[in-house]
Amino acid sequence: MRVAIIGTGLIGSSLGLALRRTDLIDVVVGFDRNPDELATAADIGGVDIVAATPEDAAAGADLVVLAVPVTAVTAVAKQLAPVLADGAILTDVASVKGPIVEGLQAAAPAHVHVIGGHPMAGSHEQGAAHASADLFVGATYLLTPTTHTSATAYQRLHSLVAAIGAKPMAVEPSHHDQLVAVVSHLPQLAASTLMNLAAERARSEHAGLLLLAAGGFRDATRVAASQPQLWLDICAENREAIVAVLDEFGGRLQALREAVAGADREGLYRMLDDARGARRSLPGKQTVSGAMIDLVVPIPDRPGVLAQVTRTVGEVGVNIEDFRIEHASEGGRGSLSLAVIGSDAAAAASEALRGAGFEVFQR
Amino acid sequence: MRVAIIGTGLIGSSLGLALRRTDLIDVVVGFDRNPDELATAADIGGVDIVAATPEDAAAGADLVVLAVPVTAVTAVAKQLAPVLADGAILTDVASVKGPIVEGLQAAAPAHVHVIGGHPMAGSHEQGAAHASADLFVGATYLLTPTTHTSATAYQRLHSLVAAIGAKPMAVEPSHHDQLVAVVSHLPQLAASTLMNLAAERARSEHAGLLLLAAGGFRDATRVAASQPQLWLDICAENREAIVAVLDEFGGRLQALREAVAGADREGLYRMLDDARGARRSLPGKQTVSGAMIDLVVPIPDRPGVLAQVTRTVGEVGVNIEDFRIEHASEGGRGSLSLAVIGSDAAAAASEALRGAGFEVFQR
Repeated sequence: MRVAIIGTGLIGSSLGLALRRTDLIDVVVGFDRNPDELATAADIGGVDIVAATPEDAAAGADLVVLAVPVTAVTAVAKQLAPVLADGAILTDVASVKGPIVEGLQAAAPAHVHVIGGHPMAGSHEQGAAHASADLFVGATYLLTPTTHTSATAYQRLHSLVAAIGAKPMAVEPSHHDQLVAVVSHLPQLAASTLMNLAAERARSEHAGLLLLAAGGFRDATRVAASQPQLWLDICAENREAIVAVLDEFGGRLQALREAVAGADREGLYRMLDDARGARRSLPGKQTVSGAMIDLVVPIPDRPGVLAQVTRTVGEVGVNIEDFRIEHASEGGRGSLSLAVIGSDAAAAASEALRGAGFEVFQR
Repeated sequence: MRVAIIGTGLIGSSLGLALRRTDLIDVVVGFDRNPDELATAADIGGVDIVAATPEDAAAGADLVVLAVPVTAVTAVAKQLAPVLADGAILTDVASVKGPIVEGLQAAAPAHVHVIGGHPMAGSHEQGAAHASADLFVGATYLLTPTTHTSATAYQRLHSLVAAIGAKPMAVEPSHHDQLVAVVSHLPQLAASTLMNLAAERARSEHAGLLLLAAGGFRDATRVAASQPQLWLDICAENREAIVAVLDEFGGRLQALREAVAGADREGLYRMLDDARGARRSLPGKQTVSGAMIDLVVPIPDRPGVLAQVTRTVGEVGVNIEDFRIEHASEGGRGSLSLAVIGSDAAAAASEALRGAGFEVFQR
């Protein structure tokens, strides 16, 4: 299996390192428009072969990963379209999926499988020099199969994602954008706003103010140290979901303000206690334990079934640990075998799938 | 020197441990209305002597520390007033200072020195069992001298705070409450609001949402795990400052929302880049280095001078590392000797003090 990585920065090079550590691939070919970044990627072992152009890297690859900035993904896909191999999988790592997956599908020829991706892992550091084969271990890795996605192609990408230690989870592209607006984009923007408010008060009122910044303030503002450029692009690409979640956040803060101003102790207690409960039960770095349980889901041979099954399981918060397609010998109908961890997860996934009209057997 | 600690929870017991490690005190007497907490404090060495009543603990003490909940401070001070020794220092550790310091001053007899305190250190854990002598090392420890505060009493408390490894900083009580509303109360309330928003979306929309919570979300919501009770009290005691800072935060979020909705890349960039700059230059855990420089400030013998000098230095963000009163042999006039670290700090403190009408000499 030949993998092409276009864009060998932190994420691209880390993916290269992580994939090369598995025994599932033969070679990683890399390209970056910044020659230094590409040279560093080769030095640290993130790529085996350095390509002179993105087309050279992508030609003949079984998997092409676009690890370029959000705003460049579609353009690079268009550029590579003519050289993509028959049956190749084209994926990306962008933090926004709705417009990007649409752009990828429009750009890619029909013989290429487009599956958007978004590893929920990163670092405040940038560049190949900070890459790590462990970056994805335990992290959720979102995949966005669509009605066009072939089950075989999805299985291959799912296996690679699982092999680098990440937890693949399927989600609908526009739904993805709403979710990350909540867990990623809002925290970033709130942290920057809080930091600016405090810095302005320090300037105008009391230079000692920031000496008072203890752990709580430091934690709350940590992501404000991120590079602005990435976030400008995300704000542009995911405008609608971000505005909606900022409005909801503003409304909740207003309600809280009224509770404080009106000395509504009961309302305040409920709000603080709910938050405490939710924060304490926040799933850890995917340390769910239990026995692996196989769920077998007979599926008709029609487009979109794979996306429907995987997303239905994701929506109830269950990770599919392993994933196999079993073709029935008589043809026309096969089944998906989904491995999940623990009986709770198996029950939740089964219930959701049955609710969506599938049969489910436990092996 | 005899120290009484009323309330031997996390902060009280940590103070006891830290003070006992210095060679400045002879004995720590402790009281807690919860006998288990008091027994634990004695077990871990946070107090030398267990008192049967708060009055027993406070009688004859040179320093009385009220480490009880915010809402109890004034009542406990009133209860202890009759037994407080002549010249004793009465301090507290509450997160709100304006109303508390007023209450302490009203409660304490004239022969007692009231100096409010607030160590900017803590833990999500509660109770004496989690106490540590190192809790205050490197942390800013706010003190609120008033026009009534005697320089000698302030010097003694300042020396104790410095001896446990904290960085004492003087601030006016009501100003204190505005500052902590920014660096402590707002981050807490914003974190709880963000956590509730995400948890609600996870319930109503996509149970997998919280599986996507990566480092940024975890950092931003960490303090949401705090105990609600403490925060209810803080919201009640510091209502005005908290409402004001919530309004400012809401206004800034609204401006940000408009920038995102209106695709104002330039405005967004400025906002994100300002925040990045401010976060990256956030002072670390007080690792300022440089030579210790003594500033000598001749002071007239009138009330309030001490508070004015120490707050003026705090307002420009300079910590007074060491503090001595030098009485002139001819009487009627003395001087304060303030040690600060580094020539930048010395210059900033000198300029601020001269601006406030003081003479400053560098030794």
